Amino acid sequence: MLKGKFIVIEGLEGAGKSNAQQIVIDSLQKHNIQFITTREPGGTPIAEALRRIWKEGVEGEYTTDKAELLMLYASRTQLVETIIQPALDNGIWVVGDRHNMSTLAYQGGGRGLSEPLLNTIKNAILGEFEPDLTLYLDLDPKIGLERAKGRGELDRIEQQHIDFFYRTRKRYLELVEQNSKAIKINAEQCLEKVSEEIRTVVEKWLI
Amino acid sequence: MLKGKFIVIEGLEGAGKSNAQQIVIDSLQKHNIQFITTREPGGTPIAEALRRIWKEGVEGEYTTDKAELLMLYASRTQLVETIIQPALDNGIWVVGDRHNMSTLAYQGGGRGLSEPLLNTIKNAILGEFEPDLTLYLDLDPKIGLERAKGRGELDRIEQQHIDFFYRTRKRYLELVEQNSKAIKINAEQCLEKVSEEIRTVVEKWLI
Repeated sequence: MLKGKFIVIEGLEGAGKSNAQQIVIDSLQKHNIQFITTREPGGTPIAEALRRIWKEGVEGEYTTDKAELLMLYASRTQLVETIIQPALDNGIWVVGDRHNMSTLAYQGGGRGLSEPLLNTIKNAILGEFEPDLTLYLDLDPKIGLERAKGRGELDRIEQQHIDFFYRTRKRYLELVEQNSKAIKINAEQCLEKVSEEIRTVVEKWLI
Repeated sequence: MLKGKFIVIEGLEGAGKSNAQQIVIDSLQKHNIQFITTREPGGTPIAEALRRIWKEGVEGEYTTDKAELLMLYASRTQLVETIIQPALDNGIWVVGDRHNMSTLAYQGGGRGLSEPLLNTIKNAILGEFEPDLTLYLDLDPKIGLERAKGRGELDRIEQQHIDFFYRTRKRYLELVEQNSKAIKINAEQCLEKVSEEIRTVVEKWLI
């Protein structure tokens, strides 16, 4: 049986990941490809429970950067082992809202955790597992956060200083540059143009 | 300022860790040593939230061994960074109910996760941080589980097959043998004899 492919949408808050996921799904459906969707951190009951602790923290307590990192990888390995890998093995494609590149960008670029530390944990836990295609939605953090604010109250991550997001974006751009399976999408364009760009990229990649 | 010391109690379910912790505390108080107590996993609100997910899991979902491992280290680094290390730096001693040796014994011996994987995660996250003294309460798992059952319903860990605990004990014994800062206590003796043995060991170590 042909294995499924793992397509991941990456980007800052308000970059339009949900819309991008829908565009990818539309293309897969057009080609009669069976798929599931995931989101990270989360995607299984245990991973979602970890997501809640990671996202909101506990009142009055500062979550250390390393504790945050390990919660993210605990959630990720639970999702990969129980959902993503079995799906791919059964020929089902997976369209993920975030995966490992988020951790490299936010915890590495944003928080400043060292690249060797991140790579050590990733390799020890997930080995060489990686997406077949990553679509990175690039935009100025200011624009993204304005959009995110429009959706309601900001969570623990969204409340970071704007510099945190500029460092995260810088790291994202470096990672995409180094990764032959990642494609940068200009997410500052209007919704129609972004959607069209994603559709074109995905259709070209599918052939 | 003189740094505090970190004393850890280790052992299987029902080995008498709470009693041992009390004996150690009594000795420290006798010597006018300021201390705090911790338990792992847990010991801070975030670490306790992780403990709940780790201990009970989520109904209907199997927690993977690697997810479990990372939850334990997330909880451990949160506790070490925010509670244990600051206490030691301020000259306050710490008496811990479990620490890293539990993970090496349960996840390594019991679950069968590889020693290189465990050491990689430990070193990446905690570096060379380790207890100054570890008291390992050794007993036949059958005796310990009988005692634990007397305390009420068994949790996700306590429900493991008895072989799991025999593998865990075997690993504990190997670890104690290799560790010059760890001492084995015969926990199959009556409570008075165990307490006396611990008191003697601690008093001798304190001088």
